[in-house]
Amino acid sequence: MSIRVTVWNEGRHEKKNPAVQEIYPNGMHEAIAGALRKAKGLEVTTATLDQDKEHGLSQGLVDNTDVFVWWGHLAHDDVSDKSVGRVHHRVLNGAGIVVLHSGHFSKIFKRLMGTTCNLKWREEKNEREILWVTRPGHPIVQGIDDHFILPAEEMYGEFFDIPEPECTFLISSFGGGEVFRSGCTWTRGAGRVVYFRPGHETFPTYHNKTVLRVIENAARWAAGNKDLPTISFGNRKLNWVNDYATGNPPPPAKK
Amino acid sequence: MSIRVTVWNEGRHEKKNPAVQEIYPNGMHEAIAGALRKAKGLEVTTATLDQDKEHGLSQGLVDNTDVFVWWGHLAHDDVSDKSVGRVHHRVLNGAGIVVLHSGHFSKIFKRLMGTTCNLKWREEKNEREILWVTRPGHPIVQGIDDHFILPAEEMYGEFFDIPEPECTFLISSFGGGEVFRSGCTWTRGAGRVVYFRPGHETFPTYHNKTVLRVIENAARWAAGNKDLPTISFGNRKLNWVNDYATGNPPPPAKK
Amino acid sequence: MSIRVTVWNEGRHEKKNPAVQEIYPNGMHEAIAGALRKAKGLEVTTATLDQDKEHGLSQGLVDNTDVFVWWGHLAHDDVSDKSVGRVHHRVLNGAGIVVLHSGHFSKIFKRLMGTTCNLKWREEKNEREILWVTRPGHPIVQGIDDHFILPAEEMYGEFFDIPEPECTFLISSFGGGEVFRSGCTWTRGAGRVVYFRPGHETFPTYHNKTVLRVIENAARWAAGNKDLPTISFGNRKLNWVNDYATGNPPPPAKK
Amino acid sequence: MSIRVTVWNEGRHEKKNPAVQEIYPNGMHEAIAGALRKAKGLEVTTATLDQDKEHGLSQGLVDNTDVFVWWGHLAHDDVSDKSVGRVHHRVLNGAGIVVLHSGHFSKIFKRLMGTTCNLKWREEKNEREILWVTRPGHPIVQGIDDHFILPAEEMYGEFFDIPEPECTFLISSFGGGEVFRSGCTWTRGAGRVVYFRPGHETFPTYHNKTVLRVIENAARWAAGNKDLPTISFGNRKLNWVNDYATGNPPPPAKK
Repeated sequence: MSIRVTVWNEGRHEKKNPAVQEIYPNGMHEAIAGALRKAKGLEVTTATLDQDKEHGLSQGLVDNTDVFVWWGHLAHDDVSDKSVGRVHHRVLNGAGIVVLHSGHFSKIFKRLMGTTCNLKWREEKNEREILWVTRPGHPIVQGIDDHFILPAEEMYGEFFDIPEPECTFLISSFGGGEVFRSGCTWTRGAGRVVYFRPGHETFPTYHNKTVLRVIENAARWAAGNKDLPTISFGNRKLNWVNDYATGNPPPPAKK
Repeated sequence: MSIRVTVWNEGRHEKKNPAVQEIYPNGMHEAIAGALRKAKGLEVTTATLDQDKEHGLSQGLVDNTDVFVWWGHLAHDDVSDKSVGRVHHRVLNGAGIVVLHSGHFSKIFKRLMGTTCNLKWREEKNEREILWVTRPGHPIVQGIDDHFILPAEEMYGEFFDIPEPECTFLISSFGGGEVFRSGCTWTRGAGRVVYFRPGHETFPTYHNKTVLRVIENAARWAAGNKDLPTISFGNRKLNWVNDYATGNPPPPAKK
Repeated sequence: MSIRVTVWNEGRHEKKNPAVQEIYPNGMHEAIAGALRKAKGLEVTTATLDQDKEHGLSQGLVDNTDVFVWWGHLAHDDVSDKSVGRVHHRVLNGAGIVVLHSGHFSKIFKRLMGTTCNLKWREEKNEREILWVTRPGHPIVQGIDDHFILPAEEMYGEFFDIPEPECTFLISSFGGGEVFRSGCTWTRGAGRVVYFRPGHETFPTYHNKTVLRVIENAARWAAGNKDLPTISFGNRKLNWVNDYATGNPPPPAKK
Repeated sequence: MSIRVTVWNEGRHEKKNPAVQEIYPNGMHEAIAGALRKAKGLEVTTATLDQDKEHGLSQGLVDNTDVFVWWGHLAHDDVSDKSVGRVHHRVLNGAGIVVLHSGHFSKIFKRLMGTTCNLKWREEKNEREILWVTRPGHPIVQGIDDHFILPAEEMYGEFFDIPEPECTFLISSFGGGEVFRSGCTWTRGAGRVVYFRPGHETFPTYHNKTVLRVIENAARWAAGNKDLPTISFGNRKLNWVNDYATGNPPPPAKK
């Protein structure tokens, strides 16, 4: 059964900025979704901020998404709390979410983390980023060598205000000497959260095969368990296990 | 220099319910604060929901608090987002917070955790709770034996919807057979968060010496570092370390 | 491509003790392996302590194992350091290991954990264990309800001297009131480690379908990534990325 | 009551290599111990590999140490298993250990971690290291700015084969573009373990005030709790909490 991926993109830079438009004529979401569509076992949808009042995040789509990929930058505040709440609820109940680059400041990521998610940053024309694998064997870095290089990217530097990751699978070093935890995972409820640092809109990062491979791997790893039962909370009666209490003869083992 | 503790309490059960009033005639906050005031090196203040429009959480008090102790239950939604945001900001910038019992559903705890913080529960007159130490040597369980027993408490049962704790220092078992992670820690920004499960308002839990010892220990452990510098974020210039770049003669070591 | 599982068992209780022999006439390893052989996509082998001088853990078998399942109790010290070192090396280089019950005291588990792995214990004829799911949505508890009950098991109680787990997916409560972290995961090198508490040899635990389901899930989750490259360590030359240094024109993006 | 620190050093480079001798005429242990002796509340002892048959680690000294500081490089294998076992036991029972630089390959660190602790490395005359704070507010980085620079150090690069740290408080970037998790913490038993990357023997790193401040902070943070009770393991009787079982009238609360 295939994994249902929803690639969500703000999609405004691509309309406003000719330089971005040239790199991503159909939007960053299509660059990413296009690559994922070529992979086996993924069913890929896109949604964008200005698509409709719900930012493309209808209840139906959200309920039928196993993993979200999220890119936003300029307009985090334009995403309605209702849509964010819907995605948040879906993640806690078993979907995954892969937050990309400037999505670190999105409402959904900040809500999942509980922190400011702030960082240091710098835009140069050609500052190189080296991404080092810090957890070989993790499914998200499958097929990736011990490092890979992006010739030009925006710098993000520590301190990155996130809760201590459950796994840090990539750490970057930049031309200027800064470092950054560029690949991190967390669990929230029954859902899995991934942060993956690259892709500033003015660079062709989402045409890079290694970057796309990491996104594909991350989507597979974070994708929800489809037959997850509803999580059970609330009031409970007493003595429901009395039959099994110590001192009574044990019931026959179920073979 | 003493640790400045602010014990915050909703304080409504004590006014409405004669049974609670009898156990805590001055409110749960005074039971807790009274015990902390007897300890060395703590400077203790209380604040309550209905004290004033800011729920006693003025900017001045929040700024001068090293660690919050938080109890709420009925009226989480009556705490204004402004006051919650103030405490959230203070914790991320280096204060601690010790969230008690039904505070698991408070706005501040849910914001720090990023999850529903939901659980199973049951109120009986005399269901016993055994709290087992699962991290001996942790400062929060200093002076506590390998377990302690509360003869009657409300049951809280797993699944407790929290991010995987950085440390789980207590796990409870209840008369009915349920279990619960009753003592947990997390880091958020420069601040420390503790959850400690006991005390339902209808039981004399905050008169129990062991419970009060854990709260005191937790407050000391979570209390902020007083000379914490402002955390640095934002735009950075390039080449600021060029003088130290590989290939140049190294500057003399600072002795 | 199927997952190659090696079920390792000490296999001595089954020969010495008629009561154990009656429950597991072909050994616990065959009870477990038999269930796994019925599952899709698993290729299952067994190995036992007294099988040969290498305890069935030949270099060839170890190299061709994706995940080990390990049960030992009486004779941990009889497993040679050479065989343990072989398994340790294999796990760090990408295999998984699922350690069962009294395997908590095995050489391999203690070496992976770095602690004593000690605990409290009690054998009664009919003390019930309730195992509560503390991470719904985790692949290891797929298909498991929010709890399951074993009518009679040996008690294991906290403090369980293990490093803080990366994920605690099951916590047990026993008839006597003790609790135990019964399902835990860690990462070591490129390998994944699972501890799963049940099955004492005198109970028919490894005939229980839920227990077998957890073992199957754990084996799938922990199984190694087959095309994992050799992890790269050691001496490195300088200036290998100079071509990409800040200030030079960036190389063309790889599309 | 003061913290009893034992600074352990291999101490052979200083005897063999005139360049090292010039930087550390009394050994690296004395450079570190000398700085710690100036700090308040620390009682500092040193011990070295060739001091006696026990490498200076007598049972008496180990039992009376609250925190070890450990430097080794050439001669890890010359440290006897007996002495290592003694330190290991002491740490699990509540002492701390601060492992420095090439101590990553020491027996004690590998035993505590359960992994190879391997890494990439390079020695240049003047490769700069920038150490970035990744957990502001942590006691170990108290008084440290958001980064500090060492003008010349040995390069250590990822992948560093360690279990996922409970806290990563420093990440380094080197002149050559590599990164390294230079400050990490773990808990083992009742003890705390810190790894702190700098000080190659041919550089005056242990004369650097910031480095010495981190070591002092780490020693304070990791130091054991003095009144830690013996951790309780082993066989337990049943029904010890029957008096408190659900259904019986609760005992009066202890006030």
